[in-house]
Amino acid sequence: MRIVLDGMGGDHAPKEIVKGAVQAAELTNHEIVIVGPVDTIKAELKKNKYKGEQITIQEANDVITMDDSPVKAIRRKTDSTLVVGLNMLKDGQGDMFVSAGNTGALIVGSRLILGRIRGIDRPTLASIYPDMTGGDPCLLVDAGASSESKANNLLEYGLMGSIYVEKVWNRPNPEVGLVNLGVEEGKGTSVTKDAYQKLKASHLNFIGNVEGRDVPKHACDVIVCDGFVGNVILKLTEGVSLSIFKLIKGKLMESLKSKVAGALIKPQLTALKNEFDYEEYGGAPVLGVNGPVIKMHGSSTATAVKNAIIKGLPYAEENVVDIIRSEMLKIQEFIEDDEE
Amino acid sequence: MRIVLDGMGGDHAPKEIVKGAVQAAELTNHEIVIVGPVDTIKAELKKNKYKGEQITIQEANDVITMDDSPVKAIRRKTDSTLVVGLNMLKDGQGDMFVSAGNTGALIVGSRLILGRIRGIDRPTLASIYPDMTGGDPCLLVDAGASSESKANNLLEYGLMGSIYVEKVWNRPNPEVGLVNLGVEEGKGTSVTKDAYQKLKASHLNFIGNVEGRDVPKHACDVIVCDGFVGNVILKLTEGVSLSIFKLIKGKLMESLKSKVAGALIKPQLTALKNEFDYEEYGGAPVLGVNGPVIKMHGSSTATAVKNAIIKGLPYAEENVVDIIRSEMLKIQEFIEDDEE
Repeated sequence: MRIVLDGMGGDHAPKEIVKGAVQAAELTNHEIVIVGPVDTIKAELKKNKYKGEQITIQEANDVITMDDSPVKAIRRKTDSTLVVGLNMLKDGQGDMFVSAGNTGALIVGSRLILGRIRGIDRPTLASIYPDMTGGDPCLLVDAGASSESKANNLLEYGLMGSIYVEKVWNRPNPEVGLVNLGVEEGKGTSVTKDAYQKLKASHLNFIGNVEGRDVPKHACDVIVCDGFVGNVILKLTEGVSLSIFKLIKGKLMESLKSKVAGALIKPQLTALKNEFDYEEYGGAPVLGVNGPVIKMHGSSTATAVKNAIIKGLPYAEENVVDIIRSEMLKIQEFIEDDEE
Repeated sequence: MRIVLDGMGGDHAPKEIVKGAVQAAELTNHEIVIVGPVDTIKAELKKNKYKGEQITIQEANDVITMDDSPVKAIRRKTDSTLVVGLNMLKDGQGDMFVSAGNTGALIVGSRLILGRIRGIDRPTLASIYPDMTGGDPCLLVDAGASSESKANNLLEYGLMGSIYVEKVWNRPNPEVGLVNLGVEEGKGTSVTKDAYQKLKASHLNFIGNVEGRDVPKHACDVIVCDGFVGNVILKLTEGVSLSIFKLIKGKLMESLKSKVAGALIKPQLTALKNEFDYEEYGGAPVLGVNGPVIKMHGSSTATAVKNAIIKGLPYAEENVVDIIRSEMLKIQEFIEDDEE
């Protein structure tokens, strides 16, 4: 297989991207193609003392920045690493695309260049959500690719998330839950009420509604919500976590006595922070397009790049895109019901 | 003024309710009328050695429980403490109603018995949101009274929240922010985009969009969002905070060394927990109905009851309901624009 890597996406490109590729190459036999300006990527490979043949370079001399408007950038910057990389996937010159670049452009580009999987109305971006009780993370879909969703979209998110968690994370028959105001069946907006019925009627392992307070406690394997709510959940979790860490640090430093205590528990707090470290989990999948695309955090370091590649491999190896395509047939009846 | 108190609402009624009333009576000269079964309330007053005349009892012998359906309960349980109390407010026998009972029934009852303020489409429930940087709390509106909102409703929430924070919390010209996917003006759903324009055009001190990550950092004084998002924000904040406290405690106990540290920092952690203690802040207002109604947490203890009464007093004393009524005229033009 050929993994295509956006050499210029993210805050620490190309340095950390290339370094991560070199680290990944030590852990897999698959070919890694770094897309970017040839001389720049070559220089980075040299810095990493890389001399093998597993990593190659595909030339692309433009970059889509964080300030670019996604749709315009995809249409106009045809020589950008993102557009060139996605075209390689489309043309069969690559089997998976991994990027830390402009999120909006990556989603729009995936839709426009690779196209939607037949039957999927709304491709989406998932996000990895930590289990704050110390267990394995969950997959949250939609993480903000669309701001509004119909009930059918929520059903699609549940289906795609379920397949991804089963095949890529190797977690059989994953539990799917719907974010809602309360756990009771009749709760929520007209959209969540409708989505509840569709998820319940589907073949998915649907456990019902999930409240905000249970989201951090691994309420289920696949957390389904619209992109607006998904965005609020992800950013609020970050905000609350960081604020509490800061407050605790402040409290610990208030007295000499607790300064001593602070020094004693510092390693424990560091260990705790690592549990929330998204870098360890690998990247987040774009789901519903005709090819495996993995989005890395914009501030990804080499470790995050390495993990995104290695932990994302089953997305391509297990033919997740094909499985989504065939499983979509199973839920067509619920979707047609809705369109009548 | 006469404060009407639901003697039988909440998990710890009537014991903690009556105890809280006795504590409040020591701090104010206003009359407090406890609604409930006369003998039961009398017995509780006796336990608290209360012999004054400031606290009186209004007989009501039925109770709306947490399991009751709000609309049915309000219509059928006419002798319930909640219905009797709201009717006292309506009939001018009371100036403020405070209850720890069934939230849905309190909102529905407020709407049905007191009626909406002229011009208000959707009365709402606000919630007090802590500032995790250690400052004063914010007011979040809507905390879950409605699951769906139109742009006009979000404008109303901003207006009512702003007046409440200014008059009851004595914070002049409070900053109003709209929960959204991103800070840029064009972000969000069709509803939030529309609400942004209405809030911007209004006379409110609108600071623009607020992202989830800034909500815990006192992004603004009045956090405006629909009830679905408000519910997720409140419950997720609770879930993340509790999970992190638990994780930290677990980490501290992992080694003998940190067991010592744990003992040393225990008072600091307790102090931290108190900062998130809703009991200290007083109750949350039902806004948009013809009378000041304060909702207390279902598990309110005497301290929470005392604070809800004392800290809620300006809701009645400052004629907040009248101010909302007259201020609604100022935003009518934006609402009419929308109805065309």
